[in-house]
Amino acid sequence: MTKNRLEAFSDGVIAIIITIMVLQMYPPAGGTLKSLLPVLPVFMSYVLSYIYVGIYWNNHHHMLQATHRVNGGVLWANLHLLFWLTLVPFTTHWMGLNHLAPVPVALYGAVLFMCGSAYYILAHVLIGLHGHDSQFGAAIGRDLKGIASMLIYAAAIPLSFISVWIALALYVTVAMMWLVPDKRFEKSF
Amino acid sequence: MTKNRLEAFSDGVIAIIITIMVLQMYPPAGGTLKSLLPVLPVFMSYVLSYIYVGIYWNNHHHMLQATHRVNGGVLWANLHLLFWLTLVPFTTHWMGLNHLAPVPVALYGAVLFMCGSAYYILAHVLIGLHGHDSQFGAAIGRDLKGIASMLIYAAAIPLSFISVWIALALYVTVAMMWLVPDKRFEKSF
Amino acid sequence: MTKNRLEAFSDGVIAIIITIMVLQMYPPAGGTLKSLLPVLPVFMSYVLSYIYVGIYWNNHHHMLQATHRVNGGVLWANLHLLFWLTLVPFTTHWMGLNHLAPVPVALYGAVLFMCGSAYYILAHVLIGLHGHDSQFGAAIGRDLKGIASMLIYAAAIPLSFISVWIALALYVTVAMMWLVPDKRFEKSF
Amino acid sequence: MTKNRLEAFSDGVIAIIITIMVLQMYPPAGGTLKSLLPVLPVFMSYVLSYIYVGIYWNNHHHMLQATHRVNGGVLWANLHLLFWLTLVPFTTHWMGLNHLAPVPVALYGAVLFMCGSAYYILAHVLIGLHGHDSQFGAAIGRDLKGIASMLIYAAAIPLSFISVWIALALYVTVAMMWLVPDKRFEKSF
Repeated sequence: MTKNRLEAFSDGVIAIIITIMVLQMYPPAGGTLKSLLPVLPVFMSYVLSYIYVGIYWNNHHHMLQATHRVNGGVLWANLHLLFWLTLVPFTTHWMGLNHLAPVPVALYGAVLFMCGSAYYILAHVLIGLHGHDSQFGAAIGRDLKGIASMLIYAAAIPLSFISVWIALALYVTVAMMWLVPDKRFEKSF
Repeated sequence: MTKNRLEAFSDGVIAIIITIMVLQMYPPAGGTLKSLLPVLPVFMSYVLSYIYVGIYWNNHHHMLQATHRVNGGVLWANLHLLFWLTLVPFTTHWMGLNHLAPVPVALYGAVLFMCGSAYYILAHVLIGLHGHDSQFGAAIGRDLKGIASMLIYAAAIPLSFISVWIALALYVTVAMMWLVPDKRFEKSF
Repeated sequence: MTKNRLEAFSDGVIAIIITIMVLQMYPPAGGTLKSLLPVLPVFMSYVLSYIYVGIYWNNHHHMLQATHRVNGGVLWANLHLLFWLTLVPFTTHWMGLNHLAPVPVALYGAVLFMCGSAYYILAHVLIGLHGHDSQFGAAIGRDLKGIASMLIYAAAIPLSFISVWIALALYVTVAMMWLVPDKRFEKSF
Repeated sequence: MTKNRLEAFSDGVIAIIITIMVLQMYPPAGGTLKSLLPVLPVFMSYVLSYIYVGIYWNNHHHMLQATHRVNGGVLWANLHLLFWLTLVPFTTHWMGLNHLAPVPVALYGAVLFMCGSAYYILAHVLIGLHGHDSQFGAAIGRDLKGIASMLIYAAAIPLSFISVWIALALYVTVAMMWLVPDKRFEKSF
């Protein structure tokens, strides 16, 4: 089974996710800079989520590049990852609409945690298919960065209720960690 | 005639269908967990429909993988399938908005029945093109799972008016039946 | 210059056009069949426009299949065609919202006329590139069906003000004429 | 690393950007030509932005055609360009909604300036990868047209507050400059 359609379908879904978020940034009725102010938190949430979805696309690209074959299990693990990514516009929008209230900020982290877990599952389904001793398995290795990201998200969720700024700082930290594309695949293949 | 653009166009349409459903899940004005409660039935409808559309993409992928050529009839049979799939977000949304009232639940089933029929027609147009005795024809075989799905949908539509929970249980049952990708094509090709 | 990205981009735009039309069919607040009635004219407009956009995709597919190369002029002729196609959801929606009032029905025809003209221009830019005596040029021939469609649209626009049903019957007639994919390319190539 | 998915993903995002702009052109409640009048400035903004996004797609197509390889830096430079392009529907819509008030017209220019800068960065990341003395580097050359466009945008932003018509005339001028696809790549490769 070839991986072309898996890549094409994922590209389509991620392209839509990344683009519809800006659709939810509704232009204000007034034509002044001041009338644009309430849009600012929505815009900041958009920037953060754009970077996140961009990171997922980038890493997905790198991981699939290194993949030799796919099967039915990979298709579903990929659809599972895309499912959680489709929820990012919703949580982004809710967080922006409520000027960073604790519950939306926590839910934003929970969806990121699920995205991270789904990516981890996809990587491990692919390792199962290629073998632990394959180049692919070696490239993933112990996946410390993936595990660290999930631990940080898991910490950020309860911390949102103490201060949303701590949670947001943690989200930005994880984004920074991943902004550099996954060198493991570039190096090994 | 190559099948590449048929696959690419179908991927595009299905990617949009699966993604716009979440767009219809509008975030509530309040920033509390309680304010999120009314979104729950919309979310549950989204999960069910995401799985359904994912199943169609998966099986479409498997079937087209096994296809050697397409013609004008296949293009239209495929557009016919995509037409019914595009109605899934509408019926999903209506069902979610009305907290699972009988008519929306029945209409949801009717659209699934039409999707199933359209998939059946597409499979048989492809069999006509490849021949009953071809590998493709043999892989489809008597298509008992496809026929069973349509019978269950046909039963669920009137049963919605007795209890929407029976209808929903039947929809979930069919989804479970198909969650495993169509092994017929994986095995034969 | 390869035609792959031209096809992929057109597929993306047409997939979105065909899918967003159904987004404009907003589900009613009530959960009864009666509450669905006002959606009916919007649904009927959707069906007609889906068939139209499907025809364009089909013929675009056939024409590009027969194309050997593209240049900057072809890219712009194609973007021009896509521009008019992007207006179809707007006119479809306006026609559906206003229960087939004369002006929206006439504007619907005007946009179809522009789509037809843009397709005619694209075909002739491609003929210019391949040569009149090429297989491609011979396959297009005198393009009587394209010219007839434009004449029928041109007649339907003023006739909308006498009776919208005459105009709609003419739109359906042209759709019927094209429902069969363009055999010229299937035969010659 | 192959450039296929980079092209496919960019095509997807640009296809959505170009198509959702028309979604923001909401049909009026009335069914007369007069009721269509308030939609006219939104339509004119749409036409201008469609041409702009079309130009970017066209030039992106030409530039990537000439590209031999991509790396992680190119992926991020490309995502950066797509980010600013996704803001075009927002500024287009705001400009159309406010009947060309100075601040929205200036912001429209600012987003175009950022798109131009991001395209310039992408071109130079690609030159860095291919080498200044490569065919690719020679084809870009001193990029006078790119630099001129950015200077014109930079002038148009403050000029919006003197007269929006001067700013709009400058935007149209830059569009005219680019409407011809980038001959540098067609000639050299």
